[in-house]
Amino acid sequence: MKTPLTNALRKEVHGLAQAKNRRESRLFTAEGTKSVLDTLGAFQCVRILATHAWLEDNAAHIHGLETVQCTRADMERITALSTAPDVIAVFRMPNAEQPNIQQLAQVLTIALDRVQDPGNLGTIVRLADWMGIDTILASHDTADVYNPKTVQATMGSLARVRVVYCDLPTTLSSIAALGAPVYGTFLDGKNIYGTQLQNRGVLVMGNEGRGISAEVAATVSHRLYIPPYPANRQGAESLNVAVATAIATAEFRRQASLNP
Amino acid sequence: MKTPLTNALRKEVHGLAQAKNRRESRLFTAEGTKSVLDTLGAFQCVRILATHAWLEDNAAHIHGLETVQCTRADMERITALSTAPDVIAVFRMPNAEQPNIQQLAQVLTIALDRVQDPGNLGTIVRLADWMGIDTILASHDTADVYNPKTVQATMGSLARVRVVYCDLPTTLSSIAALGAPVYGTFLDGKNIYGTQLQNRGVLVMGNEGRGISAEVAATVSHRLYIPPYPANRQGAESLNVAVATAIATAEFRRQASLNP
Repeated sequence: MKTPLTNALRKEVHGLAQAKNRRESRLFTAEGTKSVLDTLGAFQCVRILATHAWLEDNAAHIHGLETVQCTRADMERITALSTAPDVIAVFRMPNAEQPNIQQLAQVLTIALDRVQDPGNLGTIVRLADWMGIDTILASHDTADVYNPKTVQATMGSLARVRVVYCDLPTTLSSIAALGAPVYGTFLDGKNIYGTQLQNRGVLVMGNEGRGISAEVAATVSHRLYIPPYPANRQGAESLNVAVATAIATAEFRRQASLNP
Repeated sequence: MKTPLTNALRKEVHGLAQAKNRRESRLFTAEGTKSVLDTLGAFQCVRILATHAWLEDNAAHIHGLETVQCTRADMERITALSTAPDVIAVFRMPNAEQPNIQQLAQVLTIALDRVQDPGNLGTIVRLADWMGIDTILASHDTADVYNPKTVQATMGSLARVRVVYCDLPTTLSSIAALGAPVYGTFLDGKNIYGTQLQNRGVLVMGNEGRGISAEVAATVSHRLYIPPYPANRQGAESLNVAVATAIATAEFRRQASLNP
């Protein structure tokens, strides 16, 4: 179904860059071919705004969906990103889920404690997808996963990884009560490469500047440390949070692959 | 030495967000306390623009430097970032260096083949600092390390890691000719965890979307692959380039620490 681009529609879609508007409408956008096509399979699509060429090239993927043909100039006015894509799709957010504690105690999960940067969050969602981590627990003050910059950085992985916002100390305590380990990275933790890691439980990663909050740290049973090289190197004080999450999850999965 | 904030100066500093202006003036900016203080030790500082409070708090660090007192509103107009910092410092770029091939053949170095995103580049510089990698070779079409977003993402590590722009195929061939391995990550490479890595040579990382170019790939002697988990997992097609660089360099350093 084709509908025309009205000023009201243009404003509405552009407005979804704001968290407040997303919260009220329960809608979010994905931009760019890869993000849009990957997201189509996982979320209910409300409409697709795209150039004539994109609509022609991708007709097979968008059969039956509402489409709005836009000029390049339209796309530039609608986009939330710095470079206008050929396609922007509007999706309905799924209902917020409660974490399934029993299930989470059996597998490896990432928990994010007030991670602020939308790009870091998206990169971590993409990483989780690669590492076979299906759920990310996030404190309520972590960045919004439906931020257009986050959706963009997930590169379509949002379709395969759930981000569940919750009260983190309570949720982690419940998982720990089932006997699962809660890992966290700290500057005074134990060298991750000298630690026998279980391939389950939760890996907690903290805020970009302030690390893991005291309340969340209290639930951590295994304090880990990613060593610099050489081990006594002075210089960088920390790693980017997505980079640290990558190094830590890769080590969990490397050890698991050695001892399946 | 205190100088007043003129319109010309405000424009000039704000203009350093543009690559063209940086190239012509050979100046760049660092923003925020940590970036500025770390960079002060490594590059020649031309002047410091900061709020009254910042100048008072940091008087000991900026003794003898030219300072320009700014209001918060001034800072908002000057900054190249989305959030105005308390301090912006203007630095002189060092002269471009030629890579020292003999030296590079002995240690582990990262090479970036047309990495486009300024944030990814900065995150990789910060990672290199943590991993004790002193030099990053970059193709001429890699992002500019003096981009304010890159400087920001390095979190001060720019002071300790050199980024050398060069003709990458030529430089890599010269390093290989000295017997050093040239590693690269490819989707059809060998599992990095099943590979005995030397703790020297070059690790090449490619463009965010297109990977390593054919010309550079031709110089790679060891093709590596970062496996997903489980190994047959379908889903994410790739990792963010900074994340992939992190996982790979961490594995080089892990193996080196086991067999020093």
